[in-house]
Amino acid sequence: MDPNQLFLIPSDEIDTRIAKITAEMKADGADSILIADNANKYYITGRVFAGWLTVSSSGKVHAWVRRPITLHGDNISFVRKPEEITFDGNVIGLEFATLTAADFLRISAIIQGKPTANASAIMRRARATKTPYEIQRIAESGQRHDAVYRSVPSLFRDGMTDIDLQIEIERELRKAGCLGQFHISGDSMELFMGNILVGDNADNPTPYDFAMGGAGAHPSLPVGANGSLIADGSSVMVDANGNFTGYMTDMTRTFARGTIADLAIRAHDCSIAICNRLASIGVPGVKASDLYEEAVAMASEAGLADFFMGHRQHAGFIGHGVGIEINEAPVIAPRSKDILQEGNVIALEPKFVIPGTGAVGIENTYVVRPNGMQCLTLSPQEILPL
Amino acid sequence: MDPNQLFLIPSDEIDTRIAKITAEMKADGADSILIADNANKYYITGRVFAGWLTVSSSGKVHAWVRRPITLHGDNISFVRKPEEITFDGNVIGLEFATLTAADFLRISAIIQGKPTANASAIMRRARATKTPYEIQRIAESGQRHDAVYRSVPSLFRDGMTDIDLQIEIERELRKAGCLGQFHISGDSMELFMGNILVGDNADNPTPYDFAMGGAGAHPSLPVGANGSLIADGSSVMVDANGNFTGYMTDMTRTFARGTIADLAIRAHDCSIAICNRLASIGVPGVKASDLYEEAVAMASEAGLADFFMGHRQHAGFIGHGVGIEINEAPVIAPRSKDILQEGNVIALEPKFVIPGTGAVGIENTYVVRPNGMQCLTLSPQEILPL
Repeated sequence: MDPNQLFLIPSDEIDTRIAKITAEMKADGADSILIADNANKYYITGRVFAGWLTVSSSGKVHAWVRRPITLHGDNISFVRKPEEITFDGNVIGLEFATLTAADFLRISAIIQGKPTANASAIMRRARATKTPYEIQRIAESGQRHDAVYRSVPSLFRDGMTDIDLQIEIERELRKAGCLGQFHISGDSMELFMGNILVGDNADNPTPYDFAMGGAGAHPSLPVGANGSLIADGSSVMVDANGNFTGYMTDMTRTFARGTIADLAIRAHDCSIAICNRLASIGVPGVKASDLYEEAVAMASEAGLADFFMGHRQHAGFIGHGVGIEINEAPVIAPRSKDILQEGNVIALEPKFVIPGTGAVGIENTYVVRPNGMQCLTLSPQEILPL
Repeated sequence: MDPNQLFLIPSDEIDTRIAKITAEMKADGADSILIADNANKYYITGRVFAGWLTVSSSGKVHAWVRRPITLHGDNISFVRKPEEITFDGNVIGLEFATLTAADFLRISAIIQGKPTANASAIMRRARATKTPYEIQRIAESGQRHDAVYRSVPSLFRDGMTDIDLQIEIERELRKAGCLGQFHISGDSMELFMGNILVGDNADNPTPYDFAMGGAGAHPSLPVGANGSLIADGSSVMVDANGNFTGYMTDMTRTFARGTIADLAIRAHDCSIAICNRLASIGVPGVKASDLYEEAVAMASEAGLADFFMGHRQHAGFIGHGVGIEINEAPVIAPRSKDILQEGNVIALEPKFVIPGTGAVGIENTYVVRPNGMQCLTLSPQEILPL
């Protein structure tokens, strides 16, 4: 494959993705979409570049490139500014969820008078069901993610803090080929290489929309490890970066130092039971909100509602789509309108925060198959000793 | 200091920052500004939270908080949506550079009919001159950054690739307290923990707007180390994350494996000479574009123009403001309209790419003082052997 042509994915894979996108465009009446977001560019071409992509409803893709200057091909024009872009058709889709207000006003002036559609929604729906090629990339991340998690007990040393352990996990991940970058759509959330929660730091609320919190090491990044000693009786929840292939897996495992409270062990077992139950009922056509309600019901029946998805502050979801980014569709939440489809890749993370012990539970990444959700993150699920 | 009150910086520091912001608001005729961007929230309060801030031209700050739920104080209202926000005055400043189109349209409906100002420009100017408190945070990052760079030769092992060395540098940085997160305004550029460039990988162009390139380890993140062996005769440029305090330093040092080409050594010396020259003439009132032209002139006089700021692809700037984010004002570029002011903190990075050897040169972070630019990144500047 010529590394300087636009597409870095196989041609049949390009065709599949473009067909998914143009189907969603037609559903929303968009004649063309303008793509500026890096994750969407990566989905369409398999690469990131500075500039824009246009996709027409006929399936024509054109790149309007600022950098790198080495790209070449019939479907590429080098431009300095968006005013040089031409659009097919009348209704133009724009990425309302990621385009800045400044760029939106500039583009609006360029397409003056033309009606717009929401290209963010179009791309979100197209990306929500993964192709076999994408599932393979995710499964590969899952395998490498698993291998690193299995090494966690060997990385622990007596007297370590959460940050000490996280640094060693980060190094193992990187040595195993983790790219490091944790892709989140939007700029309101950030996380560096994952969240390691020890003891009662798990009950410190975060401003971010993650399932779990933690005070973090600094007020500029208020989530995760905060320097807590890994003391006897603490749980150690490891939710670290699984981006090995440009496609991520999301996986959490819980470890324990010494003997932890029975309540915590019971909650952990409940988390595994919820994952297994949702995986068995999560077939195409099921409502995402029904999965959420089933999880809440199981936590409540076990008498664990006060600890489910946080204790002082509760998260409003128990799972989310994952792929190029960590916050894709569908969302497993009470008011979600998403319906499970074959090929959805979903992280389920029914977790608990037990005061005096810490966070417990697991998270797995699944692909929705005709008969249920297949797990792509295969590390042992029980609480392992450190 | 109560960790659950809004402000996590001293009250006189808050007053100084608010005075800078309100002066810029008055210059642009803004009665209120609405802040959603995390870096701007961190500047104003010393913390990150989910929600919005309003600042009125009288200096009143109010937080409209979604999370964390533990915040309290007179200047806080808990809200679920931006429609609950109230604004003082008529002209409302919005962050055009970071607000999404969707949020812009939503906010526009809320402030219906009211004229707007550009809060991004207001905040960018206010943040461009650092307070003594901020300079102290940056200097502290510089000291810790320096200590890690001095350890780089001890981290090298024969047979390492650029990625191998980068992983060990990352670990040293993290052990020294580096927060890891690399804050860049906007979502078009990303970099994981810095850029380690070995040999001819330095000549691979990147799509991002960084001074140097590199192919990167994966098409989803096309910048930096790509697995190149650190071979005899290669330069090794280390430009790694200096975020230890929520305020960053930007520093680059060059190492060499074995004997490198005389041309590369000459170019490295030219980089040091350019830094020294610009630091001596960089006093308040000087045009940023004049600093750029001086750097280009010195590279040209040395016969090194073809290699300056890249070889196959050239960067369009030689320096940039740095603070909470890596791309602050002023910009040291040919068409920059910025004028140096006392308290600007500027990274200068006059670098060269020498085919057959790699990237050479240095980068330092300086604070603009009345008599010139004071260096805050004090590692040895010469090429050190690996």
